[in-house]
Amino acid sequence: MAEFQVPLRDMSFVLYELFKADEIWQSLPKLAENVDRETADAILQECSKIAEQEVATIAREGDQVGVSFNNGIVTTAPGYKEAFKTYAQGGWAALGGDPAYGGMGMPKMITALHEEMFCAADISFFLYPSLTSGAGLSLAKHGSEELKQRYLTRIYAGDWAASMCLTESHAGSDLGIIRTKAVPQEDGSYRVTGNKIFITGGEHDLTENIVHLVLAKLPDAPAGPRGISLFLVPKFKVNDDESIGEANNVSCGSIEHKMGINASATCVMNFDDSTGYLVGELNKGLACMFTMMNFERIGVGIQGIGAAVRSYQNALEYAKDRLQGRSMTGAKNPEKEADSIMVHGDVRRMLLNMKALNEGSRALSSYIAMQLDYATYAEGEQQAKGEALSTLMTPLAKAFFTDMGFESTVAGQQVLGGHGFIREWGQEQLVRDVRITQIYEGTNGIQAMDLLVRKVAGSKGALMQVFLDEVNAYISEISSDSNNENMQEFIQPLATATNDLEKLTKFLLEKATDDVNELGGAANDYLHVFGYTAMAYIWAKMAKIALDKQESDDKFYQSKLHTARYFFARLLPRRISLIETAKSGADVLFNIDDELF
Amino acid sequence: MAEFQVPLRDMSFVLYELFKADEIWQSLPKLAENVDRETADAILQECSKIAEQEVATIAREGDQVGVSFNNGIVTTAPGYKEAFKTYAQGGWAALGGDPAYGGMGMPKMITALHEEMFCAADISFFLYPSLTSGAGLSLAKHGSEELKQRYLTRIYAGDWAASMCLTESHAGSDLGIIRTKAVPQEDGSYRVTGNKIFITGGEHDLTENIVHLVLAKLPDAPAGPRGISLFLVPKFKVNDDESIGEANNVSCGSIEHKMGINASATCVMNFDDSTGYLVGELNKGLACMFTMMNFERIGVGIQGIGAAVRSYQNALEYAKDRLQGRSMTGAKNPEKEADSIMVHGDVRRMLLNMKALNEGSRALSSYIAMQLDYATYAEGEQQAKGEALSTLMTPLAKAFFTDMGFESTVAGQQVLGGHGFIREWGQEQLVRDVRITQIYEGTNGIQAMDLLVRKVAGSKGALMQVFLDEVNAYISEISSDSNNENMQEFIQPLATATNDLEKLTKFLLEKATDDVNELGGAANDYLHVFGYTAMAYIWAKMAKIALDKQESDDKFYQSKLHTARYFFARLLPRRISLIETAKSGADVLFNIDDELF
Repeated sequence: MAEFQVPLRDMSFVLYELFKADEIWQSLPKLAENVDRETADAILQECSKIAEQEVATIAREGDQVGVSFNNGIVTTAPGYKEAFKTYAQGGWAALGGDPAYGGMGMPKMITALHEEMFCAADISFFLYPSLTSGAGLSLAKHGSEELKQRYLTRIYAGDWAASMCLTESHAGSDLGIIRTKAVPQEDGSYRVTGNKIFITGGEHDLTENIVHLVLAKLPDAPAGPRGISLFLVPKFKVNDDESIGEANNVSCGSIEHKMGINASATCVMNFDDSTGYLVGELNKGLACMFTMMNFERIGVGIQGIGAAVRSYQNALEYAKDRLQGRSMTGAKNPEKEADSIMVHGDVRRMLLNMKALNEGSRALSSYIAMQLDYATYAEGEQQAKGEALSTLMTPLAKAFFTDMGFESTVAGQQVLGGHGFIREWGQEQLVRDVRITQIYEGTNGIQAMDLLVRKVAGSKGALMQVFLDEVNAYISEISSDSNNENMQEFIQPLATATNDLEKLTKFLLEKATDDVNELGGAANDYLHVFGYTAMAYIWAKMAKIALDKQESDDKFYQSKLHTARYFFARLLPRRISLIETAKSGADVLFNIDDELF
Repeated sequence: MAEFQVPLRDMSFVLYELFKADEIWQSLPKLAENVDRETADAILQECSKIAEQEVATIAREGDQVGVSFNNGIVTTAPGYKEAFKTYAQGGWAALGGDPAYGGMGMPKMITALHEEMFCAADISFFLYPSLTSGAGLSLAKHGSEELKQRYLTRIYAGDWAASMCLTESHAGSDLGIIRTKAVPQEDGSYRVTGNKIFITGGEHDLTENIVHLVLAKLPDAPAGPRGISLFLVPKFKVNDDESIGEANNVSCGSIEHKMGINASATCVMNFDDSTGYLVGELNKGLACMFTMMNFERIGVGIQGIGAAVRSYQNALEYAKDRLQGRSMTGAKNPEKEADSIMVHGDVRRMLLNMKALNEGSRALSSYIAMQLDYATYAEGEQQAKGEALSTLMTPLAKAFFTDMGFESTVAGQQVLGGHGFIREWGQEQLVRDVRITQIYEGTNGIQAMDLLVRKVAGSKGALMQVFLDEVNAYISEISSDSNNENMQEFIQPLATATNDLEKLTKFLLEKATDDVNELGGAANDYLHVFGYTAMAYIWAKMAKIALDKQESDDKFYQSKLHTARYFFARLLPRRISLIETAKSGADVLFNIDDELF
């Protein structure tokens, strides 16, 4: 497997050339005090070293050895404890955290890139700190001062990890029907009892304590989602002097054996009259959980990008080294017995698909991270627009980047041929690891429903209009300047795609007034149409910069320009068929009895 | 995992209602003596019992335990020896074999369906008999009478297995550069020396002897593919009295650890002055190998169908059982705490994609099998047309059915959500197992090149015209009969698709006269355009039958009709984007320096 190299050059391009992140940070007072370009560069530099040297290096053995379970004790694979220690002691668990409790207060634009590099290094490893940060977000927003002082500070310090306990065996996508109970005690705490499954990092040996955030219902809670509350349930109770106290009747019943992310502990967790503390308001548990969801879901999307980036690097190195067959236009490497497989159009197609999707996804995810930052740190209209766009694009990020990530890991595997299928080369692990990202944190089908039903239809199209207005304004701006003649090759197809997305949105919302199932049937196609169109917008912006600098000695801009052209020629057209099927109607889906399947 | 049920009803529909196979067999004297409907039904019935009861049942443990390797000894997983024995003693290894040596002489239309059911049961298991039959085909066609009497009879009897030894570590897709040497001996035999990798069933404990067909070069052979010869190299020599003789210096150096098909032994094979016997003519080894390639490659395509069929059955059972969430149009199952996930449009979309692709693939693969039967058993024009269509459609079958098979296993996994990712449910195994089918026996990229460059461009479009003429004749026939008004919903889109395929073919062949790379860049898209169009032709024919019988009490026809409508509404439109990208030109692929990747 190729040695992993964090694409710092492209990250820098996205941050500073594409989005002028340093100017944004300067303009937002709450951010300006924590971050500037120098700080950001130091962070990315330092994180990239850890990702390349201490995390990427343990991934393969982690996959082979996996997590072991023995009598309730979960032992992580070799190197995970050390890597976690390095990561935690570097303070990286607190990267996006609230400075009032020891967090670094970095914007999502930085934490997102840090996530990408660690996910490229090893998704299994990164799930431990990632779930920990996610729980930290909920706690920072909804926890009482006492809980934050006692638990959040220790999470940020990297002393303790955390988990999110949502799913039960009968309740995954449908959390309204969970059965875990929380019984109020006189001292204001609760006794939590129930069984949770699929709990990432529910138990492990990386930290001395684990802070579980658990969804449960009070005995008299209303039925359905409106009766769910959120509780903090530590593995070990914490004494008043902040030392570790007695065990809290939290146990791991077993771990799952999975297709991938073998080094990540996926646990069955049992709570048996365990002491818990309410986080946020009673019966508002789902809302407290969803606070972190926007941040987490884009994070899962970024896991897809990470795996895809790694896949591209491996496949490219292999393709350049592998001599097999001859170019159709005559030998390119006549002194050797064969040309490298880079001469074959179909190999180049697979590599360029990956390159264009990866760079496009990185840029688009940074754009969405930027909206999250506006939503969190800006004010007035800027805040409202950031809120609207991040709300709209969170399900897109989760589903589109993981679907593209899966495609890219499969493509990378295909480039390696038989060597992509055997374990030795490490390439097939990426396919197995990334596959879960299309499933967890809400399946991609649920994301598509969230996008089209809750966000687009729920706002009567208003949220989508915010996006369309921005793109249309950009198109007008570029088109109105005669110096931008050379941008026509990008602006025209972008305008067509944007116009088509607008028409499709109207078409579906209108159809849905007769039959709401029209949305369910079209949701997956619609999400992908939106994805390719949004990516086209970002690729057009990148192409603009690359066009302006194509004469530069830095070949980076030529590569970027070419990749933009590739995206418009070979990837954007995918939307055409998707529009066709999105419009084909719900009848073919629903007018067939279940027994005829 | 759902109990596997061979879809015998649909197989019977395809054979007798769609293609009237019994009439075809009657019309071809060489087949008529071996097969009629009664025989065929008995075969399918009997095979389905073995597949369901003795093979499907060992697949999961086979995946977990895998093949073990110890000092050159390869031990298969529990149950494989017994299952192989049942299969072999039933005579099924001889199903398509030459009756002169003990084969059953069944047409490909039968062996193909038998392959599908065993691949659905367990691809790993079926690879052992499948490679054995493949070697048998080469031997039957090119082996000397002596070799056939000595080896082929034992292969057909199921006593001995066989392997195909092609790949070397530096030579996979490019066999012209293999290094294995064969030195002629005075007695007419050869001494074969070299190392082969990725040899399926190269060594195992299923049979007392293994017959290897090995590609090698004579010391003075011409360079490249024209210097390759084919040799039969047995694991143990065979004495004149047909008893097993001394070991032949054939050894297994190691086995591969792979993403999937863990119960199939993938071996590094070492030949060290091993005695070999020439099969066919010197330096014509590739041609001898390609004799079986058309049969093998469609067989690999069928592996994809098998896995997809299993995936659909599992996913459907899960979807019907899993209660989660509510229908958007109001509770369908109000007495329970949730509806089954069958109420969700996106779940139905995934299931119907699988159903339409699976039934379409089964029918289309049977159509191609029928062409192989015409090519093998018919005469004159009928033979020539069968030859043309099977030649044209073999790469399609291999690549399209495996791509669709992978899609369907991934979709089935998605239906199961988190349960699709953990090993317990057996669903993720299908994804891992089927993935190799897109890679081995020539990667799907190579199949696409074979289709567009060798077959379509190589015949100046003539081979494709044979297909187009048949479809256009069908369209005219249906359209000219006013009783077929109800077929318009299928015939019109089929006509459009066929016309577009014809135009695309012309467009690409014309462009290729300037730049042959245009073919390489478009090949993958072209193959898929052809695949969806060919499947539309077959679905239209199936729809015709279903329309005529839609009032039948047998709900099968309603299901078929609905699935046909689904295919035309939701799957056929995929071709539109593919045509767009196929036409986008080779420039974006080739006008970028390798260093800019």
